[in-house]
Amino acid sequence: MKKEKGLLLVLSGPAGVGKGTVCGALRQEETSVQYSVSATTRAPRAGETDGVNYFFKTREQFEKMIEQNELLEWAEYVGNYYGTPIDYVKETINQGNDIILEIEVQGALKVRERFPEGVFIFLMPPSLAELRNRIVGRGTETEDIINKRMTVAREEIDMMKKYDYVVENDQVELAVERIKSIVTAEHCKRERLIDKYKELVEVN
Amino acid sequence: MKKEKGLLLVLSGPAGVGKGTVCGALRQEETSVQYSVSATTRAPRAGETDGVNYFFKTREQFEKMIEQNELLEWAEYVGNYYGTPIDYVKETINQGNDIILEIEVQGALKVRERFPEGVFIFLMPPSLAELRNRIVGRGTETEDIINKRMTVAREEIDMMKKYDYVVENDQVELAVERIKSIVTAEHCKRERLIDKYKELVEVN
Repeated sequence: MKKEKGLLLVLSGPAGVGKGTVCGALRQEETSVQYSVSATTRAPRAGETDGVNYFFKTREQFEKMIEQNELLEWAEYVGNYYGTPIDYVKETINQGNDIILEIEVQGALKVRERFPEGVFIFLMPPSLAELRNRIVGRGTETEDIINKRMTVAREEIDMMKKYDYVVENDQVELAVERIKSIVTAEHCKRERLIDKYKELVEVN
Repeated sequence: MKKEKGLLLVLSGPAGVGKGTVCGALRQEETSVQYSVSATTRAPRAGETDGVNYFFKTREQFEKMIEQNELLEWAEYVGNYYGTPIDYVKETINQGNDIILEIEVQGALKVRERFPEGVFIFLMPPSLAELRNRIVGRGTETEDIINKRMTVAREEIDMMKKYDYVVENDQVELAVERIKSIVTAEHCKRERLIDKYKELVEVN
């Protein structure tokens, strides 16, 4: 039978919703999902390996990647570039393996333009009050900054309409179970399987 | 928040693939999925209760249901009518509960016409050789009858293209897990949740 392609999964959601925590918990699980390795211009920290934690690049190399359209998405944070190399993603799914990107909302929408067949999952806070609690709980932000972040969060939640799935992050374990179910269900989608089974009907 | 509607799940597949076994195993699991109750003109057997095992009807009553378009699908087997009352299905999903129908391929396609928003799952044998084994294993059919059944099975497998999902029945427990994942994933679909979350963004 024809080998089925892997899935590109994109996990996104408003800042503070817990994307990193959920993705970290998913990594602990026994799944075959692989994790995308980002390219960055920031210096490697102790213990970080090139090609495992990040692909470490000079600014010049990174800018060349941008120019040559080799990044699914990229952004600049605190003077350093971060981005997702398209080749790594393509190789993984062509080998039949699933790969997940954990990414902020704007980046995810850029990935959708290049990879409309990806599976886009929006991680959702149980309520805006709870999201506010999580943002407040992070540190010592002023009321003004918190309000600005909530305005951004509301705009980001509005982006939900561009996603395939919405997963509520009420409890990390439940969110992880939902994501695992989405992966299983996507592999059962008829349009992904029809070529595989066409052979079954025609050859026999 | 607005209450989400339940799902209509339709489990179908070629004769001999094991629909009954898989549906029976799913019933043993702790899920909130309810099972559709069919209407029939056959006489109740000992221990069968009206409204639980079947809705028992006279031929006259059943034919009136057909006329008044009250059945999602119906068929006649060995002189008795069997069908799925549409009201029971609608009431269940309007209450926010999921309901599953286990049904042969032709019936499932009729349900799709009336209920395009249903979730249609095609149960698939691991191979045609294995399906043949299962048909042969059933009893003492002649080679000729077995070949006829295999021709029908191949035509039915071709109907797979009208379904949303394809679940391989390699092992009953695995097939049940896949169906449960499909139910979870369908509840996470953005288009089912958008109304619920719209309120969250607008009200807060």
